[in-house]
Amino acid sequence: MISHLELIEELYPICRSITGTGVRKTFEIISKYIPLETYEVETGTKVFDWEVPEEWAIHDAYIVCPDGSKIAQFKENNLHVMSYSKRINTSLTLGLLKEHIHTLPDHPSWIPYRTMYYDRSWAFCLSQNTLDSLPEGKYRAYIDASHKNGSLTYAEAVFPGTSGKEIIFSTYVCHPSMCNDNLSSVSVMIKLAQELANKNHRHTYRLLFLPETIGAITWLSKNEKSLSKIIAGVNLTCTGNRAPITFMKSRQKTSISDKAMKIVLDDMGLLYKENDFSPIGSDERQYCSPGINLPVVTLMRTPPGEFEEYHTSADNFDVISEDSLREMTSVCLSFVDTLEKNNTYINTYSKCEPQLGKRGLYRKTGGQRVNQVSQTAIKWVLSYSDGHNDLLDIANRSGIRMEEVVSASSVLEHQGIIMRISK
Amino acid sequence: MISHLELIEELYPICRSITGTGVRKTFEIISKYIPLETYEVETGTKVFDWEVPEEWAIHDAYIVCPDGSKIAQFKENNLHVMSYSKRINTSLTLGLLKEHIHTLPDHPSWIPYRTMYYDRSWAFCLSQNTLDSLPEGKYRAYIDASHKNGSLTYAEAVFPGTSGKEIIFSTYVCHPSMCNDNLSSVSVMIKLAQELANKNHRHTYRLLFLPETIGAITWLSKNEKSLSKIIAGVNLTCTGNRAPITFMKSRQKTSISDKAMKIVLDDMGLLYKENDFSPIGSDERQYCSPGINLPVVTLMRTPPGEFEEYHTSADNFDVISEDSLREMTSVCLSFVDTLEKNNTYINTYSKCEPQLGKRGLYRKTGGQRVNQVSQTAIKWVLSYSDGHNDLLDIANRSGIRMEEVVSASSVLEHQGIIMRISK
Amino acid sequence: MISHLELIEELYPICRSITGTGVRKTFEIISKYIPLETYEVETGTKVFDWEVPEEWAIHDAYIVCPDGSKIAQFKENNLHVMSYSKRINTSLTLGLLKEHIHTLPDHPSWIPYRTMYYDRSWAFCLSQNTLDSLPEGKYRAYIDASHKNGSLTYAEAVFPGTSGKEIIFSTYVCHPSMCNDNLSSVSVMIKLAQELANKNHRHTYRLLFLPETIGAITWLSKNEKSLSKIIAGVNLTCTGNRAPITFMKSRQKTSISDKAMKIVLDDMGLLYKENDFSPIGSDERQYCSPGINLPVVTLMRTPPGEFEEYHTSADNFDVISEDSLREMTSVCLSFVDTLEKNNTYINTYSKCEPQLGKRGLYRKTGGQRVNQVSQTAIKWVLSYSDGHNDLLDIANRSGIRMEEVVSASSVLEHQGIIMRISK
Repeated sequence: MISHLELIEELYPICRSITGTGVRKTFEIISKYIPLETYEVETGTKVFDWEVPEEWAIHDAYIVCPDGSKIAQFKENNLHVMSYSKRINTSLTLGLLKEHIHTLPDHPSWIPYRTMYYDRSWAFCLSQNTLDSLPEGKYRAYIDASHKNGSLTYAEAVFPGTSGKEIIFSTYVCHPSMCNDNLSSVSVMIKLAQELANKNHRHTYRLLFLPETIGAITWLSKNEKSLSKIIAGVNLTCTGNRAPITFMKSRQKTSISDKAMKIVLDDMGLLYKENDFSPIGSDERQYCSPGINLPVVTLMRTPPGEFEEYHTSADNFDVISEDSLREMTSVCLSFVDTLEKNNTYINTYSKCEPQLGKRGLYRKTGGQRVNQVSQTAIKWVLSYSDGHNDLLDIANRSGIRMEEVVSASSVLEHQGIIMRISK
Repeated sequence: MISHLELIEELYPICRSITGTGVRKTFEIISKYIPLETYEVETGTKVFDWEVPEEWAIHDAYIVCPDGSKIAQFKENNLHVMSYSKRINTSLTLGLLKEHIHTLPDHPSWIPYRTMYYDRSWAFCLSQNTLDSLPEGKYRAYIDASHKNGSLTYAEAVFPGTSGKEIIFSTYVCHPSMCNDNLSSVSVMIKLAQELANKNHRHTYRLLFLPETIGAITWLSKNEKSLSKIIAGVNLTCTGNRAPITFMKSRQKTSISDKAMKIVLDDMGLLYKENDFSPIGSDERQYCSPGINLPVVTLMRTPPGEFEEYHTSADNFDVISEDSLREMTSVCLSFVDTLEKNNTYINTYSKCEPQLGKRGLYRKTGGQRVNQVSQTAIKWVLSYSDGHNDLLDIANRSGIRMEEVVSASSVLEHQGIIMRISK
Repeated sequence: MISHLELIEELYPICRSITGTGVRKTFEIISKYIPLETYEVETGTKVFDWEVPEEWAIHDAYIVCPDGSKIAQFKENNLHVMSYSKRINTSLTLGLLKEHIHTLPDHPSWIPYRTMYYDRSWAFCLSQNTLDSLPEGKYRAYIDASHKNGSLTYAEAVFPGTSGKEIIFSTYVCHPSMCNDNLSSVSVMIKLAQELANKNHRHTYRLLFLPETIGAITWLSKNEKSLSKIIAGVNLTCTGNRAPITFMKSRQKTSISDKAMKIVLDDMGLLYKENDFSPIGSDERQYCSPGINLPVVTLMRTPPGEFEEYHTSADNFDVISEDSLREMTSVCLSFVDTLEKNNTYINTYSKCEPQLGKRGLYRKTGGQRVNQVSQTAIKWVLSYSDGHNDLLDIANRSGIRMEEVVSASSVLEHQGIIMRISK
């Protein structure tokens, strides 16, 4: 089995942006590992308040110094060119050039990552050290890029179930050569898809690989009619560094996603941070916008913008670890498992306890002080299967691990003591 | 007046089980002290998902050792025979005999208490020390017991009131010679009944003495029609040891019982533990089953199963104290008192304060900084008698002792300022 | 501009009571500074459960000692006579005189403040030291006072707006020469009125100067029909000493007043105490009585009765400070400001985020980690402008200062992205 890090290594060199060949190449690679369907949405297509932008292509870029040497070469590091920069080929003084240069003075050896999608300009991103070393003189700025009508590309890996209900996982694929933001999450989604392909599941799982913001907006716009099927969802961002998991609730706050993710993280015994919904972040801003309001929670480690290497050339392989990535994939799988097994039941023997003994569900000798956890779970399931509580609620209320609550419910359902209701 | 401990001493020697002469003898003794009505429900009667079991009778039991000596003599300690053991009279090796013997290896001198109501088998309970001392050889196991059609016996002490509303107290009488579990609660209920007999009360108080589980189920099944009268209830279990009180809420969580018990314990200044409802315990499992869902809270000291001597021969007079028992009876009486005095009122002068001065309800000289608690209580009662809050709510909100809130309301009601509404 | 302390100095000497010339003179002085409308309500007028009392007039009062010297002279300190004392002119022994004397044994040099409005009696208030120095002998008690039909006087300063909604500020003017209780609040209201006179505002602000209790009851009785216009209110009491602010919630608990006052105090960075509503205090007892239940919160520093000098001659200029008073006025003004700017909006682009960039509301270069607070505020306003949350709710949820939330909403409203709804 390919590792998360190997996947990231393969995807790392590609220069991605919100449209264009970078994203398409990325999807080609991903589709070697999982079944992937790609969609092209034409430039100019109206998507809610937005329009699909022109497609950006970049072939080469560099700055020629007064002595003829080249710096800021796109072919060396694709962060050197501000994403969506326009074509330029001009001579200019160092002073004028500097107006088109971004650096990180606090981290003089790092190259920043900058974008300007919705305004036509151009810029280079350099290390502060490089900038400081430049002598006065005549420079040439060269960017061989183009903007033209084309399309925005996104992809779905769908694993259909029979319940008529959908769970989405979403992450963004528009960032160039950076690891934690966000090849980490791309790799987690690929590994998750590989596992889903080998699993029986009653719900449909739809894994979305999108350009950030405009991609999520495009997808929501094109799929508005079927959003009502979605009972839960997870947005993934910056999932690979060595920090503990941060789980941000959905705007709905008490949705199935919120309940399930909490139980998953608790039952896995992970230390994690739980944040209320905030509309400052990644694509959950769209999924949880007030008119969409999907039950989508966000999984990350250090939130974007809060780790030092965020949006710089230092967000490289040093920042991420296979263990962090593997753990995140496990969380997602456990979330799937939890949703697969969650149900709402009605206790059909709700007046007093049913006689468990005659059904073989009770220890024979009474009076012993034994830690019979499954009997405890059985009693909790019986007591709260009143149609108002699902198994997640019962696990939460009782403090019993979800898997034990599920076992208890399955024994009781099999015996006809509790009855599944659709919720 | 007879003490709790004297009552327990009188009841202690009897071998009780869920049916049979032990329970009947127990009721005979109790009825010397309080008016008690007993009910017999025939073997085979369907009670919800259960059936009233056959009646068990035991006359004698012992093990004859290879040297002819007798051990595990029922007549010495009725815990020696597993409750509901079937008749046996057989010779067997020590090896085979051991399959029918329960001990407590961690407490080698204690005899365990074991039951097996719904499966026909037999067993002896010995101290580990005794078991260890047995030589190889031929043994005879002798249990002179029988199972036959008969009936299950329960008893009620009813103190009728006029309000049409009922409060139940319930405890179980099926345990043989053990003190904290549960003769403690039987003695508390007897003392409570003696006090109720001498009290004016508007509500009906129904004190239930039942075999655990099957007795509560039987009673609920036979009284299903009139459960709607019950506005509050207390289940008592293991109330006599020297630990602080544990108060477990009802499944309803915010019922009158829950509010009143909290206020009683707070106003008595007791240190106590407050637990959310859990369906693992005693007869509240039936009273609070989802289809019954009565407002029944549970009073105990150390919860059953959590004290070392639980279900062993060590649960004897060393474990309990008259002080603990007396305090528990006081809590029950105070609970009665609180419910008797609780009402919901409407302030008929709800627009601004009524003029208390002209009704003699206000200190004459203004401006003094005096701690006039009853005026404080009057103001709280006026402010929150809006039909949504009963006196319990007002006591809880204001932090004022219930008795002061009651005094204030009674003065205000007498003056026609607040009006009782039925709730 | 006149200071708070100068206002208090001017008002201090007057002997006020719940009716009579003291209150009228007070209003004359106040109306030099702000537009004030006074109202007279005749003795005997029925106001809810109360009646407007007779008017009390006092001209002189003193005690003549055996040696002919005068003590407890009203003209030296108007606290010497219990408010509403009846006319007396009688000779009596020291023993009998003492039955009509109040002192403060714990503070032997202080004179207490006492009242007896609804019972006809008479009394003097002395320092304990003076009382202790009195020799046996014949004394003459002389109070030249009268009770006759007249009227109760209250005053309003109204600053009309156009929204049809009203905010009230209320304080009481019936206390004689004491500073913190309550000339402090009178001065705060005057300064607030001066500011309101120079402000544009959409809501109507009604500032009430009333005798405590009977005045508030009278005002509520006469204005019952228009109470529904009141969306918020503040009662002021004891606002001038050097302690931190205490903010007591309204009986409604979650009204606009409650939300706004919390945000004002938080955004001003003040340390303050927040209390739940309690019906023990000042005129909020009437405003928040269950049949009136206005959204009126209370602002004070040390609550009345809890500071040492309360209702004594020591409640003088040593107790209060201009800084405390000025801060309180700022809180009131900020409360006004907050209510003026609060609105409930609907995000008309609620499906995904609107494209802020094309409207000039987004930084052009993406990827930079800048602390762009106003964009954060914009996103919170968009996310929670769903018709259920007003700006106060959004400020509270986001932890962003109200003024930033307001700025964000105003930009978004101006661009037609959010729409104001009346709430």
